[in-house]
Amino acid sequence: MSDESQELGITESKSHKPGEWYAEVVQKAGLADYAPMGGFIVTKPRGYALWERIQDALDGWFKQTGVDNVYFPMFIPESFLEREKDIVEGFDPEVAWVTHGGHNELDERLAVRPTSESIIAPFMADWTRSHRDLPLRINQWCSVVRWEATETKPFFRTKEFMWQEGHTAHATDGEAWEEVWTRLDQYARVYEEVLAIPVLRGKKPEHDKFPGADTTTTVEALMPDGKSVQGGTSHHLGQSFAEAFDITFADEDEEEQTAYTTSWGLSWRALGALIMTHSDDQGLVLPPTIAPTQIAIVPIWQEDTMDAVLEYSEAIADDLEAAGFRVELDDRDERNPGFKFNEHELNGVPLRLEIGPNEVDDGEVTLVHRPDNEQSVADRDEIVDAVDEHLETVFTKLYDTAAENLEENVRTADTPEEIMGTIGKHGGYVKVPWCGDSTEEDDIKEKVSAEIVMQPVVDKGGRSAGEPERPPEGTECVFCGEPADQYAYFAKSY
Amino acid sequence: MSDESQELGITESKSHKPGEWYAEVVQKAGLADYAPMGGFIVTKPRGYALWERIQDALDGWFKQTGVDNVYFPMFIPESFLEREKDIVEGFDPEVAWVTHGGHNELDERLAVRPTSESIIAPFMADWTRSHRDLPLRINQWCSVVRWEATETKPFFRTKEFMWQEGHTAHATDGEAWEEVWTRLDQYARVYEEVLAIPVLRGKKPEHDKFPGADTTTTVEALMPDGKSVQGGTSHHLGQSFAEAFDITFADEDEEEQTAYTTSWGLSWRALGALIMTHSDDQGLVLPPTIAPTQIAIVPIWQEDTMDAVLEYSEAIADDLEAAGFRVELDDRDERNPGFKFNEHELNGVPLRLEIGPNEVDDGEVTLVHRPDNEQSVADRDEIVDAVDEHLETVFTKLYDTAAENLEENVRTADTPEEIMGTIGKHGGYVKVPWCGDSTEEDDIKEKVSAEIVMQPVVDKGGRSAGEPERPPEGTECVFCGEPADQYAYFAKSY
Repeated sequence: MSDESQELGITESKSHKPGEWYAEVVQKAGLADYAPMGGFIVTKPRGYALWERIQDALDGWFKQTGVDNVYFPMFIPESFLEREKDIVEGFDPEVAWVTHGGHNELDERLAVRPTSESIIAPFMADWTRSHRDLPLRINQWCSVVRWEATETKPFFRTKEFMWQEGHTAHATDGEAWEEVWTRLDQYARVYEEVLAIPVLRGKKPEHDKFPGADTTTTVEALMPDGKSVQGGTSHHLGQSFAEAFDITFADEDEEEQTAYTTSWGLSWRALGALIMTHSDDQGLVLPPTIAPTQIAIVPIWQEDTMDAVLEYSEAIADDLEAAGFRVELDDRDERNPGFKFNEHELNGVPLRLEIGPNEVDDGEVTLVHRPDNEQSVADRDEIVDAVDEHLETVFTKLYDTAAENLEENVRTADTPEEIMGTIGKHGGYVKVPWCGDSTEEDDIKEKVSAEIVMQPVVDKGGRSAGEPERPPEGTECVFCGEPADQYAYFAKSY
Repeated sequence: MSDESQELGITESKSHKPGEWYAEVVQKAGLADYAPMGGFIVTKPRGYALWERIQDALDGWFKQTGVDNVYFPMFIPESFLEREKDIVEGFDPEVAWVTHGGHNELDERLAVRPTSESIIAPFMADWTRSHRDLPLRINQWCSVVRWEATETKPFFRTKEFMWQEGHTAHATDGEAWEEVWTRLDQYARVYEEVLAIPVLRGKKPEHDKFPGADTTTTVEALMPDGKSVQGGTSHHLGQSFAEAFDITFADEDEEEQTAYTTSWGLSWRALGALIMTHSDDQGLVLPPTIAPTQIAIVPIWQEDTMDAVLEYSEAIADDLEAAGFRVELDDRDERNPGFKFNEHELNGVPLRLEIGPNEVDDGEVTLVHRPDNEQSVADRDEIVDAVDEHLETVFTKLYDTAAENLEENVRTADTPEEIMGTIGKHGGYVKVPWCGDSTEEDDIKEKVSAEIVMQPVVDKGGRSAGEPERPPEGTECVFCGEPADQYAYFAKSY
């Protein structure tokens, strides 16, 4: 058993070696394994269950807001990919190409989809004839492939990744903007309400937009190691795809108009952010909102107390299940309680109930919750309320810690050197007034691997692009000294 | 409007031109479109919604019976595909090959998965150390690609198709058999309870097994055109994959043993069977169990009755939604009732409520249900019960028609010529006593495109292979005249 006990332990430290620690948590908590081909992973049951909960939440919100699911082919003919020039320039270097079907070479190479605008847009054109066909909102849950030559980091960096991609067409620019913000808000909601991670919402700078987009909006989450994660993006594509693929419609006066389109995606990178944000040196930590098992009940018995302890534990498990909690009664005989405690901690179970002969005699239950192993005792008769309260506490503790990390790590700077110095020392975000044009971003990127990850927007949520957050009158751009009319957030990022 | 009315009509006849009729229903009912690459389709919202209902049902049953969802890479290195010889022989001619990533040629070609045994088995080997790790049951919902050069038939024949593939490992042959039958029963249940299609269960003949399988079991559904659809297959893989990929475990005595594995899959071909079985020359017909919209309410008004009719209709829609039905109140102003009737019929809405001023005055509702447009009138106050009854009637009518088709179309034959004659004349199944060995199947296949699609099994469902259904003592094989100890079902198939 000593061997197996050791297997349970996380040996790396989150604060000292976050990269190695992350890889260890992912594997030891049974979330994913590395595939034989570099850049690919195998998503195991506990990892996939987390993705399914994100899917359930988002898919429900999508359907409530007029989105239908569809499925498009995983291949895109090369000639289709070439029809929107920014897409081909942006993705061509990272496309996986199918060249042979069986023993025959294909007449035209097929791209394994890196994103599906180029195969979806021509069908949108076909389905959109009249203003009555708009808005058109479709979504697919699938995987995409981008052949980037980087180190594999499960859920953060893989050549194939799972996501959803939504694609919409609208009659007006304003309706397209409303769509963009609706989806961005839903992404923020997944992070904040399901994953217990506060996020910043804003726009990507011009030079970091999605290929072909007019505007890319983003939710950004700050990791404990000081790096920002691009948590989900929602793109206003303007009329560039509509023009390239001829998405037009007859308006109410029977005049032909060009549509406005959007696309928006959230990938399993959300799982990476989840793991990275809350987990610790004991293993995975999950908010109860997403934990496949919310409560592990560990009965502790000797031979003479076994029947009483198990009976008492089973009754409690039944009560909790009836109340709608996801419960595991861990009555394995071949494992001792200490092993079980460690295993459930490793696997991210938010709450543990310990039940021994004393608890049975006293009509009580001992509760221990993550992340800090705070322990308390509750009356057997009030167990449902006690569990509910503990799980809420777990969520609050996790959210508050992440929120505190975010609040404490938005700093300002007056010079490019200060941006670099602050990020080099603290990580986090550095918010600077900017003219929107000149940067020394390349220099900053080279020296401290940081770049503009986000620009804050105010008055968003309506049928417009919103306004950039404005510095006070007379503020100068940190780079060029000209008047600054917007802010930029610099950070290192995943 | 005449143009659009015409668009709604199905112009081909199911009985005269089933192939053309099927293609027309699929497109006009908005289920799927043809992709620009031959062999691929685009699954549209109404088509994908049907697949989601099949997923929901099966996925729930899988989870109730110990199956966890996972996700494996969509690519399989060529060297992995080659490790199980039957798999490589079976699938190599139909593999789509990725040869380039970005601008670089890959060192090793990657197969787009035609099925995932070859990438899953090595991980099963890794995860299976002790008998405590068994049974191991995983499943993934994904698409696979098989480069077959045949005419595209949406949901029946496409190069890429959606399915689920389940993969399990067990300590004993008996447990593997139990698994095989459990999944086959769940497939039968999807057909019978969700799709309203009765099926036959049995084994595929030896020469038509899944590559690498010991036994392939199948559910077969008979289409109205007399052809059989292989509705889902569940394979006992014996120890061939376990040996090829080294899936071994330490038993209770710490002895190393080789596991037994199974795999099982159901594809969107189930949608093809659904469409083909119930639909008619008015369009798609769906059982209420799977229909995205179960009830269309069509208010019929003149200017002076509009308010009263709409208010009455809305209240009924609310009542039915509150009772859990999926309802669409079609209050579009720009379409007349006749157009709406046709459209909802085309789209497969099982039940239509017609509400005009007379219904309002009399406190009644007119109900018209598919497939036969039977009409009746119900009291407003009893609308929920009336709707419930009508939807049950729809299901029963559809199921009974399909069951009757099946019952009337299992025939027998005494000679090979009679097999061919009967299938040529009637289609359907021809059940013949067989020695299990000699056939003139090639000849039959060539002459009437029929082959052995199924062999009936008795006493299935337990921890064994079951027994073939036995002909009476002294029965002779229809081919060789030797004693027959089993039956074979011949049919044309999709």
